[in-house]
Formats: sequence, C-alpha cells, structure tokens
Amino acid sequence: MPTYAKKDFPVENVRRFLEPGPIVLVSSAWRGQRNIMTMGWHMIMEFQPSLVGCYIWDANHSFEMIRRSRECVINVPTVELATTVVRIGNCSGREVDKFATFKLTAVPGEKVEAPLIGECYANFECRLVDASLIRKYSLFILEVVKAHAATSPKFPRTIHYRGDGLFMIAGPTVGRYRRWFKPENL
Amino acid sequence: MPTYAKKDFPVENVRRFLEPGPIVLVSSAWRGQRNIMTMGWHMIMEFQPSLVGCYIWDANHSFEMIRRSRECVINVPTVELATTVVRIGNCSGREVDKFATFKLTAVPGEKVEAPLIGECYANFECRLVDASLIRKYSLFILEVVKAHAATSPKFPRTIHYRGDGLFMIAGPTVGRYRRWFKPENL
Repeated sequence: MPTYAKKDFPVENVRRFLEPGPIVLVSSAWRGQRNIMTMGWHMIMEFQPSLVGCYIWDANHSFEMIRRSRECVINVPTVELATTVVRIGNCSGREVDKFATFKLTAVPGEKVEAPLIGECYANFECRLVDASLIRKYSLFILEVVKAHAATSPKFPRTIHYRGDGLFMIAGPTVGRYRRWFKPENL
Repeated sequence: MPTYAKKDFPVENVRRFLEPGPIVLVSSAWRGQRNIMTMGWHMIMEFQPSLVGCYIWDANHSFEMIRRSRECVINVPTVELATTVVRIGNCSGREVDKFATFKLTAVPGEKVEAPLIGECYANFECRLVDASLIRKYSLFILEVVKAHAATSPKFPRTIHYRGDGLFMIAGPTVGRYRRWFKPENL
C-alpha cells in the first residue's frame, strides 16, 4: 500500500483533486465508533469558504455518524488502493471495523475528531455546515476546514467510477491548453 | 473535430459518463438566443428520476437563460475538443454566438428547445426541476429527460479540470475490480 508524505494544502484549492471527479473514501467517528464509506457523488460548490456537496445514502452506516457528529474526512485514494476501495464499499460498518479489516492507518485530524486515512494521497477535514438538504436530497454541504496533500507524485492516479463495476483510471495531467485562458480565469 | 454516431441512451445510466467528473458543455436557448458554457461543478444526485446537480455562477450569461427557460443540454466533449472547451469558457455569450464562432453543430433536441452540440460524445437533455437552491448556492437541480450517446469508442477520452489551466485526460476504463462487488451493488 502506498505511503504518502503530506503537507498542509490550501483549503481553497481542494478542487485540484476533487473537481476531476475521483471516487473518495469518507471517514467518520461518533461515540467511540469509526467508519469509512466510498463516495462517488460529490461536487465543489465554492472556493471560499471551501464548500463540497456530497450525496450520502441514508442506508449507509456513515449517514447517521456524519449527520450527528457533523464532521468527516474526505480522503483521496489512488489506484493502488482500488481493491480496498471496492471492498470498503461492499461491506457495512455495522458489522466490521473497516480500519482494522483493511489494515488502514487512522491518523488523528487537527480540526475534527474523525480520523484521516494515512494511505490516501490527500485528506480533507470537513465540517457539516448545512444539513437542511439531507432530508430531501441526501445532500450534505461540507466545509473543508483543513487540507493535507502529498507533493509527490504531483498529480495522483485517482480512480473514477462509471457504475457497473468499471473504473476509469486517471491519465496524464496536461498544461498545453493553458494559453487559451484569460489570465483572470486561471 | 470528431463526429459521433449516437443512439438513445437510458437516462438512469448517465452516471456512466458524468460520475467520472468530466468538464462538460452546457447549451441553452432563450428568446431566439442560444449559448454554450463550460461547467466543471456537477454531480449525480439520483438514478430515477435521473437528477444532476450543477453549480452555475450568476455572472455567466447562461445563468439567466437556463433559469428562465428551465431547460438546457449537458454535452460531454472529448479531448479533441479541449481547445474549443477552453475558448468557450473564456468568452461570453453576451458578445458572441458560440455555435458560429467555434463552428459547432446545433442539433435540435427531442424534449427541450435548447440545442445539442453535435461534436460531443454524449448529449443529455435536461429540465430544471428545482430552482429553490439557486439563490443560496447557485445550485440547479436538473432532470435528464432524454439522453443520446455514441457507442464507439465504448468509453470517451474526456477531460477533467484541476484549475490553474490544467486538465487530467481520462485514462483507460478497467473491469478488473468488478469481482469485489456484491452483485446487488453493481
């Protein structure tokens, strides 16, 4: 499994890793329990504050843990973790401690009680800042309050879910279209 | 520029192309005007009805066109269109007709007045079904009411924005993790 040396990362720049649309692991803690879920439905909603919208199905064990603790961590896994990502998504925290089962390192957060996953490329500590859309849309509005990211490789080989058991693996990141941007849009 | 032969595609399966997180082109029409914008902030929110949440900045010319017409088309471009995608995002429909300027084919929709972009791999005709989150979050809740997708190549080489002028280009789609899924989760 990969080990990544991470540094503080500016919260207003987490789009660098989330906007390309990777599947992520969401870790949470509540009343002495910890859990991890896989999540494919998320979007950046604002730079400052750093808002991320997430769909969390109410049948997931993590749903109540995040709703009640009002915290979680969004972890960005790379392709080396793909089997683990799928296995995490195919068992329930009601039955297993996923950190122990999958031999993942629970790293303490700085701003939240939920643990970070050490083996992921990046970790975004989040607070639930708007719970009003949970009932109607299962939509959690999170604010990233602290971000950590590896610096090598510069761009992670993330995995992107298509449904039906299929993943797209991130290809190269290119800057050759940069000259077509107006400077103020970069 | 690519030309794609397209077929009807099941609306409940549009996640196949949207969940991996590509940048998309959103086309709209309102009172004799048509326009295109680039969009990177979107997420699947439901299979049936087929819901997609989209962030549209209120400074965009398309904002009022979509809000008033309550319709648009989400078009999925591939890497061959990358320069055009960037140029579309760096000029305004207030000043130019983007279909004419970028020599794109406006194909009539079946369920909406907004035109489809012929050169894109897939086209999803959408209706605005919930406008209540526009004011607070610039969040448009769209329902895909008709979908069209190419069948070749099987998986499009989409482009995924990281900010700062950088795009991740979609790599291969793999099925080798499929055996770790429970059948009911596929």
